Amino acid sequence: MKVTVLGCGRWGSFLSWYANKQGHDVKLWGREASRNYQKLLQTRTNDYLLLPQQIQLTNSLEEAVAFAELIFIAISAQELRGFAKQLNSLNLSGKSFVLCMKGLEGNTGERLTRVMKEEIQQPVHVAIWVGPGHVQDFVQDIPNCMVIDSDNSQITKLIVDSLGSETIRFYYGEDVLGNEIGAAAKNVIGIAAGILDGLGYSSLKGALMARGTKEIARLVKAMGGNELTVYGLGHLGDYEATVFSKHSHNRRFGEAFVKQEPFEKLAEGAATVKALLHLSAKYDVELPICQAVNAVLWEEQDAQDQIMKLFMRPVKFETI
Amino acid sequence: MKVTVLGCGRWGSFLSWYANKQGHDVKLWGREASRNYQKLLQTRTNDYLLLPQQIQLTNSLEEAVAFAELIFIAISAQELRGFAKQLNSLNLSGKSFVLCMKGLEGNTGERLTRVMKEEIQQPVHVAIWVGPGHVQDFVQDIPNCMVIDSDNSQITKLIVDSLGSETIRFYYGEDVLGNEIGAAAKNVIGIAAGILDGLGYSSLKGALMARGTKEIARLVKAMGGNELTVYGLGHLGDYEATVFSKHSHNRRFGEAFVKQEPFEKLAEGAATVKALLHLSAKYDVELPICQAVNAVLWEEQDAQDQIMKLFMRPVKFETI
Repeated sequence: MKVTVLGCGRWGSFLSWYANKQGHDVKLWGREASRNYQKLLQTRTNDYLLLPQQIQLTNSLEEAVAFAELIFIAISAQELRGFAKQLNSLNLSGKSFVLCMKGLEGNTGERLTRVMKEEIQQPVHVAIWVGPGHVQDFVQDIPNCMVIDSDNSQITKLIVDSLGSETIRFYYGEDVLGNEIGAAAKNVIGIAAGILDGLGYSSLKGALMARGTKEIARLVKAMGGNELTVYGLGHLGDYEATVFSKHSHNRRFGEAFVKQEPFEKLAEGAATVKALLHLSAKYDVELPICQAVNAVLWEEQDAQDQIMKLFMRPVKFETI
Repeated sequence: MKVTVLGCGRWGSFLSWYANKQGHDVKLWGREASRNYQKLLQTRTNDYLLLPQQIQLTNSLEEAVAFAELIFIAISAQELRGFAKQLNSLNLSGKSFVLCMKGLEGNTGERLTRVMKEEIQQPVHVAIWVGPGHVQDFVQDIPNCMVIDSDNSQITKLIVDSLGSETIRFYYGEDVLGNEIGAAAKNVIGIAAGILDGLGYSSLKGALMARGTKEIARLVKAMGGNELTVYGLGHLGDYEATVFSKHSHNRRFGEAFVKQEPFEKLAEGAATVKALLHLSAKYDVELPICQAVNAVLWEEQDAQDQIMKLFMRPVKFETI
């Protein structure tokens, strides 16, 4: 099958490598000015993998989109709306897009599948690919379980059948809203975990997992999704990678932030937390962990105070 | 208030140290032949703490039980039935017992609060103390959140009011069955985590968390408890301590087992997994992770095969 991957960062370049390994004919698109793209063009490598010669690199979006019916998108979540507008100027009729990033639109709280539907005025399918898994592990054939979800079960099945392997075992998702909110929100829980690590309170990450899942489950339920989705692979199942792993960008970002150490760039969760507070207000759901992370990152509140307020509130029942 | 602690291992000795720190009058009991007891008697120290002089050590069970109305028990779960029979020969009328160990009776699947009720033919209250927290952290005032649960809300409240602090923040439990099964079962998930670590599949611990909580939630529901309890502090909240921490005895045991390295003694989860399989049969609930751990520990099955069977089964829906 022909497959296009849009975006050649860590995850996009891995997707093209992996789809090629599964026997597909792959085109990988990057912006001409992108450092990742230039490096792949010149060396066919990045920090994680060597790109086989069969994978065609291009910086023409038109060429990339025309190439395949199945198109994976792996760019920054906050850039999706602009990118989708650009895509809409091309002929997309009948294409299926798979969103491979985990985030929400920061200034609106909008889900990324909704952003796609709002900006693309053509008949397309939109699926999401969520769940745990590090590029660093997959390139060594260390397996994991992930989830494909979409509003169309045939598209879900097509993606799973085409891309499933001994290395990536897919489950069919059954709740796009819950999986999308859950996958995005785990980055915020990852920042909270980094804050705990940075303050020397790593053992509170257990309580963080119990309280974090609960607040995101409340939000998903209020939005009309299934609260139990949050306890599946897309959110809780991603906590190893996000809350504990040394590879986790969001966790490392949170840790560096409280230690006032330099970090390369904002983690995705820093935008997602703003989106979640939009949703908290819109659906009238309290999100104390998200509030605390937001207060630390965006309101210059003291991290230690916020954590103590969060975990050391007066005695109460667990279910409240 | 007067407080008795029965059992002077790591957790029992900590409980006496902690209750003393909260201003209580504490008696700590150990068996005369116990190495822990002899060491405390001679040095008033163990690997974790120094026992203040105000804490009275005794090897007389009669004296220890007569001393206080509130009695904490921290012994091996598998020894509880015999110990409870012994206790029943004393006058226990009106006493409140708090079970501080996490396990189920291996050869029957019985919950420990039920074992107490079966063996003690006197009017007593029985509560449980569950949730995350390492002795190693608490003695350094690194805080955590835990849960007290019982069939009697006044007893729950008494314990929380007497023992809660800035270091240990208690929540009131609302589902003794769910908390008891969840707290015991987390040790089995801890062994499974160690098996994954030992095989080099640490990144599957994310999927383990999502699938592990789900199977234990199914069991709790079938037994008449609330499935959401499993996602609280007593089970999921204890995963940091059990699935990830270097201190976790169950995790280290599982890792040593698959690496065929020596380990001091069986972890509690090795007995608990047998109990859970009793419950699996009795309530007709599939527990694939527990089955795999049991097959590896007790049926000489290959760990790698079991893990691949567990996580790499044919594609399916996540909720099944």
